[in-house]
Amino acid sequence: MLRNTRKVRIEWGDCDPARIVYFPRYFVFFDNCTAGMFDAIGLPKPQLLKKYDVAGFPLVDVQARFMIPSSFGEDVVIETTIAEWGRSSFKVQHRLLKEGGALAIEATETRVFVAADPARPGGIRSCPIPRELIERFARG
Amino acid sequence: MLRNTRKVRIEWGDCDPARIVYFPRYFVFFDNCTAGMFDAIGLPKPQLLKKYDVAGFPLVDVQARFMIPSSFGEDVVIETTIAEWGRSSFKVQHRLLKEGGALAIEATETRVFVAADPARPGGIRSCPIPRELIERFARG
Amino acid sequence: MLRNTRKVRIEWGDCDPARIVYFPRYFVFFDNCTAGMFDAIGLPKPQLLKKYDVAGFPLVDVQARFMIPSSFGEDVVIETTIAEWGRSSFKVQHRLLKEGGALAIEATETRVFVAADPARPGGIRSCPIPRELIERFARG
Amino acid sequence: MLRNTRKVRIEWGDCDPARIVYFPRYFVFFDNCTAGMFDAIGLPKPQLLKKYDVAGFPLVDVQARFMIPSSFGEDVVIETTIAEWGRSSFKVQHRLLKEGGALAIEATETRVFVAADPARPGGIRSCPIPRELIERFARG
Repeated sequence: MLRNTRKVRIEWGDCDPARIVYFPRYFVFFDNCTAGMFDAIGLPKPQLLKKYDVAGFPLVDVQARFMIPSSFGEDVVIETTIAEWGRSSFKVQHRLLKEGGALAIEATETRVFVAADPARPGGIRSCPIPRELIERFARG
Repeated sequence: MLRNTRKVRIEWGDCDPARIVYFPRYFVFFDNCTAGMFDAIGLPKPQLLKKYDVAGFPLVDVQARFMIPSSFGEDVVIETTIAEWGRSSFKVQHRLLKEGGALAIEATETRVFVAADPARPGGIRSCPIPRELIERFARG
Repeated sequence: MLRNTRKVRIEWGDCDPARIVYFPRYFVFFDNCTAGMFDAIGLPKPQLLKKYDVAGFPLVDVQARFMIPSSFGEDVVIETTIAEWGRSSFKVQHRLLKEGGALAIEATETRVFVAADPARPGGIRSCPIPRELIERFARG
Repeated sequence: MLRNTRKVRIEWGDCDPARIVYFPRYFVFFDNCTAGMFDAIGLPKPQLLKKYDVAGFPLVDVQARFMIPSSFGEDVVIETTIAEWGRSSFKVQHRLLKEGGALAIEATETRVFVAADPARPGGIRSCPIPRELIERFARG
């Protein structure tokens, strides 16, 4: 199973008046890491969308547990794996680790591939995930 | 049980290249609505923090289901309730409704009151939620 | 000249560890206020883009002076006017006022109407601003 | 003169429905690069604030020219220099370059060192920039 790792510097603007990361920012980090999975198999998101005529892969479900806060100036590591492939949906797991390796956050995203909906101009609808894409991930 | 309702205009900058709300923005909306609960009992967040010497109420857990996307120019409504009070934690539920009333998102936040940790300069630790605060919510 | 006014609640997540608004957030407020000008003439941004086949009106220049900081829990007012119309560009002025009326920020945006560039798939290029749009603003 | 360079990956969530960077995000990038200048002299922002009892260095003025848009998946480079030191203020210049080196954005920030204001609890006021800090930058 492909595991991708990304180092993230926590910046001043990621933090709130309690001097810890404002939690929606973590979901931005995780979203970037999910996109990074496609870089890792050599098919960055812009090419992916074009190649398969996909509009994106928005979330349908997310769960996260926040165990240790982080603050500006820290360098954390996010480990990302794709835990499961469905017909049009897939599950992504993220683990955010502090320097030293302590687990600070665990999150699971369920996402769905969507394409333009020919029936509703400007609308989107779910679409099957290309098999060859899943195979590329299986090959790692 | 106190239910607070807030109208949110979806703005251009809330949306991503798929022309729908970039999902971390929803958590910003929800965070604002949680703060709005304290406005509703007449104790806005700045006064709350000062009165009880609290640093904030960060998340320890969040779960969300995204059922219908939204796009810029839409006016949505978020209904917020505090579902449960613990000793130092509390659960907040948010329901985001489209114009017309369709349920688009359901989210549950578990948050914990924190105060400065005297043992670690700059650190925070959980602290009990003031009873009189919970009573104020009970009175509505 | 049409002047539009919007009240903005400064939220917790708008602020940084210095407990004041993280300055890029002000540009989000201003961007929303610029969009609000089109609401004010009865042509909200989604309709505007569709009607004139426009992709958006990104910035080409911005200048801002920050005189007084603001913090979470404050309600500020932003006054917005369109100061000048060019062939494909226009200038927007924003004044952010504290409760009590003190001028906290002055900003000037220069924006340009853009449309899809037929010569470069996915690209954009400037396009003339529809005359009838400018006339609608002149009528107020 | 010290020039610091940072590579920035433009992410999906940095972009708006026109598929280009939502401009307030550029100011986030620039803010991070300004903080990076202090990393470059071996005094990262958290240590800097603690050492000199400073609350931050918020903006008093910013100017930016946007010449070429960027989109998700692009890697851009930001070159940052401190152009001028005053008594309590300093000027920072940022140049954002596309792959291939084309200049896409030029921005100038004027910032001011601030410390807690003993006369107003929770307030801030400008304070002199430590001479030894400026000398560290002069040594590069």
